[in-house]
Amino acid sequence: MLADCCFCVTDFKDSLNTVYSAIEEADFLAIDGEFSGISDGPNVSALTNGLDTPEERYMKLKKHSMDFLLFQFGLCTFTYDQAESNYVIKTFNFYIFPKPFNRTSPDTKFICQSSSIDFLASQGFDFNKVFRHGIPYLNQEEEVQLREQYEERRSQSNGSGNPSYISPNSNKGPGSIPEEHREYIGRVDNVGLISYRFPKGLHVETLETEKKERYIQISKVDDEERKRRERQKQEREQGELNDAVGFSRVIHAISKSGKLVVGHNMLLDVMHTIHQFYCVLPEVQTRTIYMNTMVYFLFHLYLNRIFILTFPFKSPKVVTAEGFPSYDTAQEQLHEAGYDAYITGLCFISMANYLGTFLTPPRAHIPSQSKLIQPFVNNSLMCYYILYNTISYSTVVLVVQCVTIYCTTPYPTAQ
Amino acid sequence: MLADCCFCVTDFKDSLNTVYSAIEEADFLAIDGEFSGISDGPNVSALTNGLDTPEERYMKLKKHSMDFLLFQFGLCTFTYDQAESNYVIKTFNFYIFPKPFNRTSPDTKFICQSSSIDFLASQGFDFNKVFRHGIPYLNQEEEVQLREQYEERRSQSNGSGNPSYISPNSNKGPGSIPEEHREYIGRVDNVGLISYRFPKGLHVETLETEKKERYIQISKVDDEERKRRERQKQEREQGELNDAVGFSRVIHAISKSGKLVVGHNMLLDVMHTIHQFYCVLPEVQTRTIYMNTMVYFLFHLYLNRIFILTFPFKSPKVVTAEGFPSYDTAQEQLHEAGYDAYITGLCFISMANYLGTFLTPPRAHIPSQSKLIQPFVNNSLMCYYILYNTISYSTVVLVVQCVTIYCTTPYPTAQ
Repeated sequence: MLADCCFCVTDFKDSLNTVYSAIEEADFLAIDGEFSGISDGPNVSALTNGLDTPEERYMKLKKHSMDFLLFQFGLCTFTYDQAESNYVIKTFNFYIFPKPFNRTSPDTKFICQSSSIDFLASQGFDFNKVFRHGIPYLNQEEEVQLREQYEERRSQSNGSGNPSYISPNSNKGPGSIPEEHREYIGRVDNVGLISYRFPKGLHVETLETEKKERYIQISKVDDEERKRRERQKQEREQGELNDAVGFSRVIHAISKSGKLVVGHNMLLDVMHTIHQFYCVLPEVQTRTIYMNTMVYFLFHLYLNRIFILTFPFKSPKVVTAEGFPSYDTAQEQLHEAGYDAYITGLCFISMANYLGTFLTPPRAHIPSQSKLIQPFVNNSLMCYYILYNTISYSTVVLVVQCVTIYCTTPYPTAQ
Repeated sequence: MLADCCFCVTDFKDSLNTVYSAIEEADFLAIDGEFSGISDGPNVSALTNGLDTPEERYMKLKKHSMDFLLFQFGLCTFTYDQAESNYVIKTFNFYIFPKPFNRTSPDTKFICQSSSIDFLASQGFDFNKVFRHGIPYLNQEEEVQLREQYEERRSQSNGSGNPSYISPNSNKGPGSIPEEHREYIGRVDNVGLISYRFPKGLHVETLETEKKERYIQISKVDDEERKRRERQKQEREQGELNDAVGFSRVIHAISKSGKLVVGHNMLLDVMHTIHQFYCVLPEVQTRTIYMNTMVYFLFHLYLNRIFILTFPFKSPKVVTAEGFPSYDTAQEQLHEAGYDAYITGLCFISMANYLGTFLTPPRAHIPSQSKLIQPFVNNSLMCYYILYNTISYSTVVLVVQCVTIYCTTPYPTAQ
């Protein structure tokens, strides 16, 4: 039984297999992100002008939104139960923070927008969970760099590689030893000499104290013990690497699954997800991003259960998976990412099933893999506008729209 | 009795008189700030290179540090008690956040640096207090703008001014009424006509519901009641204005007091304080900023009680003012701004008293207004370096220095 659906760095590793199997068994996934801000330039309505082309919006968001942080990621998995004729859901809320992994890792800077922070604060958002216990992440390039660092260090240790005592980018050879120090140097057992003298019988390792002070531990070991320690060290390093890649592993799993992913106002979520966990966004929204990374389409959808009830869509039958905490639509928890993802998934099911009412004979359940859904994938740009008047008769245009993404070709992960 | 020395927006207004009188009675003040980051470009050691001139450091900090947020401000006031021969201290910790005041107020963006946030998180810093309950503030220009907004609205209401029904920047006059609507328009009692018909007997006011929906309330009142309501409204508006100016009022009080203000590594604190609560920093650090706003000097000082104990300085006698929570130097709370300010004040007293040991006969107490202190004001640039080796023998240079500022000419406040 999960205590709640919120995951921090402390319980992330233990939850990963649960997340992986939830993604694996799901028919479709719903995601949602919460950000430290929306726009560092134009106001939000100018940034998401309903009359912009997808290319225009992409360019605006890339220019003005990518320096904010996606710091809460909601994932809700939907699995159809044929026997019970309902969907079984599992919801996850991940708090995310780019905690520097070590002294050479990137020190990320991100912008906060006070109106966005104030809005999330008014919804009871827990900033301490983000900044104290957020799950770290690396993008693909950072992951490759860290992996290379580990491999270089491994090949240098225990004399198995070709250790370089020359600074990189230096044209000088090793320094010559002054005459008066030759005898002393000759007597000194430095680390290189030790491992040269005892090529099989020593285990040399750089360790860190709790205070992050580094020291070298040299142990006399026989061949078998040395190999055992070597394996242990490699496993520990692999564990550290996995911890550093952190939340990006969930994104890799979503991408690899090839499952349908739905969201609301989702272009921003998709762009942040690629930018933060994958790579720098291409300058122009080309076919590359459509075909090679993720394919998205715009879909009309309004994130509100009232909308579902008043429109021809029927509220779908869902149950929470056993052992998972459940959301209640009667007690709205809008703007918790997991809840928003859950509601978005409900909307998607309602609309998919609505398409089934046009069939002869009508069908109550339309699976997410149905051909009826296909025309909306990467093909349709539909915006739904609601015009409503406030009591002071100022007219407000509320653009409600939904972007659904569909991963066709999973993007490559670093190995 | 104050529960603790931390102030949020909820208890700020009630604490203001306590803060004002603490500043008023003090012999000198110590301040310290905590920031959302230090550098958006070069690493911190390059930014605060001990070999830079004050001008170079100023330019670097202005370029790379001002987009971060000063979100905790510590103030410690020191008052000498002649009878008891000790200092009486009062410590305040203010959480600060630029919560947008209304729909036209600026939507501040600020940068966070993940290493700084991570460091504060590891010290138990409470980010929820900042983002949920931080005290707002306005700089001088924003305060003037808001004051003008209020005055313009006041002069337009109740027909006392010259209300303009023409959009600003419009060259057109009022539109002409089409023939077929003349009769209807003639019958309509719009707000302008009402206050014209009842110039003394009506009170017109724009109010807001809890949902921020605005509506106009028109009440029939006699002349006396109308004036009473007018006064009430003005008082309420003045209160709102003061709430919006918020924490800047503490900075105004410090500046007006003309008291000696001490800090450590203080150029950054002074620059953030001016930038955030006063005005945009001048392009180049000219005499203007020295003479007209604040005068600062650099002083060698290390923020650590161990330093005080091992150097010739004696630990000073201080007691916490009655009703104020006390800090204990045995339980270090470094990097809570109020504690850091307190420790800095202790260091200053020790060093000031140390100067007294050179007098004949020696004097145990040197007041902060003493002529012995004067040579260090705006005159001295002294850096103290400690070179120490870590256990792994990598050499680390720790630059320890302290900047003390002294307000000579208080900067003008908006009226």
